[in-house]
Amino acid sequence: MLTAPAIIDLNSPHAELQARQIGEKAQMLHTMMELGLPVPHGFVITAQTCQTLNEMDWPTLSDSIASALAHIQSGEGRTLIAIRPSASCAVPAFTDALLNVGLSDEVAEHLATQSGEPRLVFEAYRRFVQDFAHVVMGDDPAIFEDIVAMYMEEHGFVSVSELQGADARELANRFKAQFESNNGEAFPQDPMAQVKAACFAMMRAWNAPRARTHRKLHGVSGEASLALIIQAMAEGQFNEDSGLGRAATRNSQTGSAELNGSFMPQAWGSGIAARLSGSRPLNDGSAECLAATAPHLFRELHEGLTSFERHQRDGIEAEFAISQDKLFFLSAKLVKRSAAAALRMAIDFANQRLMSREEAVLRIDPLSLDQLLHATIAPETKRNVIASGLAASPGAVSGRIVFDAEEARGLAADGIAVILVRPETMPEDIRGLHAAEGVLTTRGGMTSHAAVIARGMGKPCVSGASQLRIDVAAGTLSAPGLVLKRGDEITIDGSSGQVMSGKVLTLKPELSGDFATLLEWADGYRRMEVRANAETAQDARMAKDFGAEGIGLCRTEHMFFEGDRLVAMREMILADKERDRRAALAKVLPMMRGDFVALFEIMAGLPVTIRLLDPPLHEFLPEGGTELDAVAKSLAADPGLLRKRVNELKEQNPMLGHRGVRLLLSFPEIVEIQARAIFEAVAEVQRLQGKPPIPEIMVPLVFARSELDQVRRYIDATAIAVEKEMGITLAYRVGTMIELPRAALRAGDIAASAEFFSFGTNDLTQTTFGISRDDSARFISEYQSKGIMKKDPFVSLDIDGVGELVELAVQRGREARPDLHLGICGEHGGDPDSIAFCEAQRLDYVSCSPYRVPIARLAAAQAHIRAGTK
Amino acid sequence: MLTAPAIIDLNSPHAELQARQIGEKAQMLHTMMELGLPVPHGFVITAQTCQTLNEMDWPTLSDSIASALAHIQSGEGRTLIAIRPSASCAVPAFTDALLNVGLSDEVAEHLATQSGEPRLVFEAYRRFVQDFAHVVMGDDPAIFEDIVAMYMEEHGFVSVSELQGADARELANRFKAQFESNNGEAFPQDPMAQVKAACFAMMRAWNAPRARTHRKLHGVSGEASLALIIQAMAEGQFNEDSGLGRAATRNSQTGSAELNGSFMPQAWGSGIAARLSGSRPLNDGSAECLAATAPHLFRELHEGLTSFERHQRDGIEAEFAISQDKLFFLSAKLVKRSAAAALRMAIDFANQRLMSREEAVLRIDPLSLDQLLHATIAPETKRNVIASGLAASPGAVSGRIVFDAEEARGLAADGIAVILVRPETMPEDIRGLHAAEGVLTTRGGMTSHAAVIARGMGKPCVSGASQLRIDVAAGTLSAPGLVLKRGDEITIDGSSGQVMSGKVLTLKPELSGDFATLLEWADGYRRMEVRANAETAQDARMAKDFGAEGIGLCRTEHMFFEGDRLVAMREMILADKERDRRAALAKVLPMMRGDFVALFEIMAGLPVTIRLLDPPLHEFLPEGGTELDAVAKSLAADPGLLRKRVNELKEQNPMLGHRGVRLLLSFPEIVEIQARAIFEAVAEVQRLQGKPPIPEIMVPLVFARSELDQVRRYIDATAIAVEKEMGITLAYRVGTMIELPRAALRAGDIAASAEFFSFGTNDLTQTTFGISRDDSARFISEYQSKGIMKKDPFVSLDIDGVGELVELAVQRGREARPDLHLGICGEHGGDPDSIAFCEAQRLDYVSCSPYRVPIARLAAAQAHIRAGTK
Repeated sequence: MLTAPAIIDLNSPHAELQARQIGEKAQMLHTMMELGLPVPHGFVITAQTCQTLNEMDWPTLSDSIASALAHIQSGEGRTLIAIRPSASCAVPAFTDALLNVGLSDEVAEHLATQSGEPRLVFEAYRRFVQDFAHVVMGDDPAIFEDIVAMYMEEHGFVSVSELQGADARELANRFKAQFESNNGEAFPQDPMAQVKAACFAMMRAWNAPRARTHRKLHGVSGEASLALIIQAMAEGQFNEDSGLGRAATRNSQTGSAELNGSFMPQAWGSGIAARLSGSRPLNDGSAECLAATAPHLFRELHEGLTSFERHQRDGIEAEFAISQDKLFFLSAKLVKRSAAAALRMAIDFANQRLMSREEAVLRIDPLSLDQLLHATIAPETKRNVIASGLAASPGAVSGRIVFDAEEARGLAADGIAVILVRPETMPEDIRGLHAAEGVLTTRGGMTSHAAVIARGMGKPCVSGASQLRIDVAAGTLSAPGLVLKRGDEITIDGSSGQVMSGKVLTLKPELSGDFATLLEWADGYRRMEVRANAETAQDARMAKDFGAEGIGLCRTEHMFFEGDRLVAMREMILADKERDRRAALAKVLPMMRGDFVALFEIMAGLPVTIRLLDPPLHEFLPEGGTELDAVAKSLAADPGLLRKRVNELKEQNPMLGHRGVRLLLSFPEIVEIQARAIFEAVAEVQRLQGKPPIPEIMVPLVFARSELDQVRRYIDATAIAVEKEMGITLAYRVGTMIELPRAALRAGDIAASAEFFSFGTNDLTQTTFGISRDDSARFISEYQSKGIMKKDPFVSLDIDGVGELVELAVQRGREARPDLHLGICGEHGGDPDSIAFCEAQRLDYVSCSPYRVPIARLAAAQAHIRAGTK
Repeated sequence: MLTAPAIIDLNSPHAELQARQIGEKAQMLHTMMELGLPVPHGFVITAQTCQTLNEMDWPTLSDSIASALAHIQSGEGRTLIAIRPSASCAVPAFTDALLNVGLSDEVAEHLATQSGEPRLVFEAYRRFVQDFAHVVMGDDPAIFEDIVAMYMEEHGFVSVSELQGADARELANRFKAQFESNNGEAFPQDPMAQVKAACFAMMRAWNAPRARTHRKLHGVSGEASLALIIQAMAEGQFNEDSGLGRAATRNSQTGSAELNGSFMPQAWGSGIAARLSGSRPLNDGSAECLAATAPHLFRELHEGLTSFERHQRDGIEAEFAISQDKLFFLSAKLVKRSAAAALRMAIDFANQRLMSREEAVLRIDPLSLDQLLHATIAPETKRNVIASGLAASPGAVSGRIVFDAEEARGLAADGIAVILVRPETMPEDIRGLHAAEGVLTTRGGMTSHAAVIARGMGKPCVSGASQLRIDVAAGTLSAPGLVLKRGDEITIDGSSGQVMSGKVLTLKPELSGDFATLLEWADGYRRMEVRANAETAQDARMAKDFGAEGIGLCRTEHMFFEGDRLVAMREMILADKERDRRAALAKVLPMMRGDFVALFEIMAGLPVTIRLLDPPLHEFLPEGGTELDAVAKSLAADPGLLRKRVNELKEQNPMLGHRGVRLLLSFPEIVEIQARAIFEAVAEVQRLQGKPPIPEIMVPLVFARSELDQVRRYIDATAIAVEKEMGITLAYRVGTMIELPRAALRAGDIAASAEFFSFGTNDLTQTTFGISRDDSARFISEYQSKGIMKKDPFVSLDIDGVGELVELAVQRGREARPDLHLGICGEHGGDPDSIAFCEAQRLDYVSCSPYRVPIARLAAAQAHIRAGTK
């Protein structure tokens, strides 16, 4: 049963004119009409009607359509129409528009006679047949293209421009014959039969599994619906001076206000964009541009779109027609834009007082800022994609394939750009990662070692590209059907996950003034602090440049991986006695102290949160045989003993093993040496800068208060010792990571001993889901394609599960200690949706990779604005 | 400040006569007095007074003590006293009693004259000096023993019985001299000084860190307190006919009512038990037993203790004295008992109507039943302990060391008992585990593979014995200072965790009628069902014999590990195409079906919960090089390819990897073949038994409802197919494990698709704590010794953390589906404390290893009784 109104006039002032009922495209047309812009008449079959379209109800609907058509058709009812999908939100309709619906043998002959341009009419007719065959029947358009090619060969034509009216008519006939041969029925001559078939076909495409899955994956399956626009084609289109064009109010790359686009005379038919290759520019100063050939029309176009832009408060791109010296707007949409263009427009509109700064801040997708921070592949560059992995760290870069860290360092030292290609990376690859331009792994997820480190360094990374096979011995990297060798050039795009063979043109990042302006505006609306995860001076400086307001996570283990320190660390691990362990650690003390001094100096008064040693000891030990022997040599240790120790330390599930606070309590000398390095650095910076930094010392992997209490005792004792030795008074805070479900549950108890909580949502996600981030690549994408997960929970916080634990910990923690300082330092600290959740929980800060700091600043501002307007 | 009453007369009818104020020992004495049994006068310094004992308050207290002493002392105030610690609950006081306090040079001379037995008096004096030196001053008693030995050598004595009065006097002098030399002060001659020193020393011992830690670990630090008993020694003790004895109302091994014990004339002094080695029996029919030499005293002893037993409704063990033909009871406590004895007594008392059957059921520690189910090491057998590990599966057994599963099978086939010794076991060791008498591992926790399998099989297992080193190549097992070889005999005690060299005498289990009686009584009070975790017919039968009311967890992966099946499974894993995987699985189908038929037949109508394949695929693949080659050969596969596949499947953290429902959704053909095997078995059993079993199919590792929905679709489709093929109607239930924190949080949602939940608390504990059970041995014991954890959370459910998640899941699940069936199938299903928690949550059943079924039956009954009386 149909419920009225089944169709709505585009020009109707009805309340039903909502995107939900008529779709976005129709709404744009309606608005243009309201603004008085010339738009051909038309109507919309509403989304509700389309959704319940069926054979039984068709006769009723058909009557409504016929009477509406009569209304928009002029003269003898020979006005052709366009049928366009109009989705309620920005998702693909999975179907093309059909133009010139209503063409038939009889109508074509009539129009050919009337216009005196049979060539143009029959060209349009054959294209309609082809498009109808494709959209409605699912025929392959290439078959029809072949017919044209064959005809031209037959007749010795070289260019389609040589075809005359008779040729066009003959081609239209051949197309119809092909249609009949393909489908076992003649090409329909009844306009209403064409309309019916088109409507049913478009709805089939919209409801096909592929389209449904796409909407499900984009989280819009509930709200998306499709309406169909039926609109008159411009009158008098088959004249020599008529034509189709496309115009945009803004430059899509820069966002600056310059009307651009193109116009093609005699370009009737569908697939406009594709056929505009030989078109004329709108206004490039040449003699043939539209501004020169029809200045009044160009002005009308310019003024019309500009007023529409001001009304929409957004850049507009429109299709238009010119027919018998009249301008018609056929469709409009928001202009496609780069991140830079989006920024420019938002700032422009705010400066023009078309919107508030608040609204401008809300306009920008925080994630899009990433484009501005990293190199991108130049648009319209040919990409020879050989595999796809996870877009683990953004940016595009080319370089030569190397398979190990040492080689990377060697070639990089000679000035050769390299991409480090590994099944997965280990802590000991860190120098190779530093030397390489980017990293490609065949295993590991979004938070694998390679991905996390690369993001931290701001280097492109594609991880888990599982179609690729690495054969280090043979020195090859194999993709399906292709074998690359060590030294071959490849390009990786860490923003898309693509891996390409060869070198590809990339564009360098440019942080324009707009970027700084918008973030400055955003900062005005932000409540949460934004800190960075950083441990090196380089990262800390970069983070501060990006606007970080402190360090939220300094992972001290990275301080042990470098050169001499790694040797000392290995000595410690190999030592059997506490005394020997202390001696080994003592060697690292001055280096660590130096690192902390550097961080404190850079952050000058801003908070610095230092996490005590977290990973299991075996991460510091060598893996392979030859490397193990080398380490044994450098330590003058027995290789057999070393091998034994490595085996002893191996764990089945290191993520759930002897690490974090468990390790600290087994080897409290580590706590003491780290606390000492921190406190001595505080003293040093106090001497240098006059003001002491206040370090926040963070204990990882706690699940019970007593763990924290015991570690705290070692920290406090060390503080007292340093105070005595140096004659100073130390201020510091001790807190804990909340990164295990039990810690979240016991937060009330733990808060009694913690001055701050930092949610380690990477680990919390791992344990809440029971998914290791290192092994998740195998099934997370499968789960996404099956609709089990919308998003990778390591990328965007799982609000329903992990989020409940965070919420619970926040409540219990604050209840026990009202002034508890709360932050997040997992990867989620840089994800806008997760940041919105943190705002809802009223956390005090988020901490993320340096490169994510601008995103976090903007996202935190947006979250606070939205929280206020709710 | 002291608050009255600081001391309480043992015979006082005061309300303060509670264990909390005077301790358990004092309470026993008080009760005996009330029953009219002869007990020497005495009083108690209350726990509160003791706890605040200090120098300042001593004078006041001292006055009270002096006047109380005057009250209990007869004649010239020369009555000696005993000072005994009396703790408020059954924890060690960490101090010994002191007897004959009050002896001094002067008193000794007086008593020697008075009694005419200087030898006995000075013997007692020197022992008092020795004990005082030990208890009060901390001197080593061995120094004093050396003095005696030296004196005897000096004088040519061979036996102490040769010593005369003069010798005893001289020895007492030498002891005092030694005391002075040790401590720089003379042995105190003032009785009140002796009392003061003793009281302060006893409280020091009670409050020492060692004692505090012990109480903390046993969870009684809050409630435990110590009082001190001061009691007169029996008058006239220094006579030839006087003596000390010990008597128990029950046989401590069997629990039968037979008064037993011993008596030793002239045995004055402390450390009675130690010095009774040459004592006479009470009543063995011999001429010198007490019943023969003093029948009236024996009768008084027997009647007194029997009436006391009836009053206490528990077996009693007492120290007594005989002095001048009079009987005195000096102290009493509950008789030590084996599990069998405890059962016997409870049943006896209930049959005698001294207590209800309910109370009898509550009397038995469920864990003690384990002693009855497994072989134990014969008491007082010499154990040459070479290492200790975790008591992972109870029972003691001896056998020859073997290092691999094949060898175990070979030797076992020849009738040789072997112990499989491995760093850890793998699924492919399963046949070796079957063949061995027991298993010993150097790695792994309470729920490592070896531990779980061994418990399932009811075989002794010691796991994580980390002091041991296995060198398979050399064929040696090294303990500190000892190297054993392959084939050497060892004994493991899986009830204590001890590893012993050589063969040790063990006692076979005996399930007496008492065992069955008590469990039958318990079943009458039980609400929760008790099921067993079992997958083999052997286990299922054993479980049923132990009273299991169904199978709560059938781990189907074990069905793939055996012989031909493992080969087929490996073929499946190696297959690249679904078709090949299906072909490989089809080979396993008939074998699986047969397994299910057997289980359904044995369980005959009882519920059987079958968990679909859970572990990651790489668990089925070989590890080592040579073994891998052998597999390649048997599969006619390329070893290189196989090796590659093994490496591809390797995971960093398999526990958090591609397993459970994740694997089932990647390879739904596994679900289909398992469901088919189950349904075809149902059909078969229906044909055989006339009644179809109703299987419960359980999906592991779910964290979202949609996972369950998708697996369910494959199950349902298979059911429909089998119904069609066989022309039957199938009934079955589909449910899920709740074993991830997210599953617990999302339980409301998941319950909409699950007919039952089974809490997999092993995995839930792993993820809630972030502790892998395989790697936990490294630090869990350390955490226990540091007081961070009271109990291993893999053994007893962590109520505060994991428990909260279970509670939450129960609430949310029941809210969404009121008839949701709820059970637990982790290792905790056999742990009494965890079972009490399950009762509080009103779960429908617990499921545990077959050998744990009796424990669970009793614990569930107790939990239900206690829940009702709350």
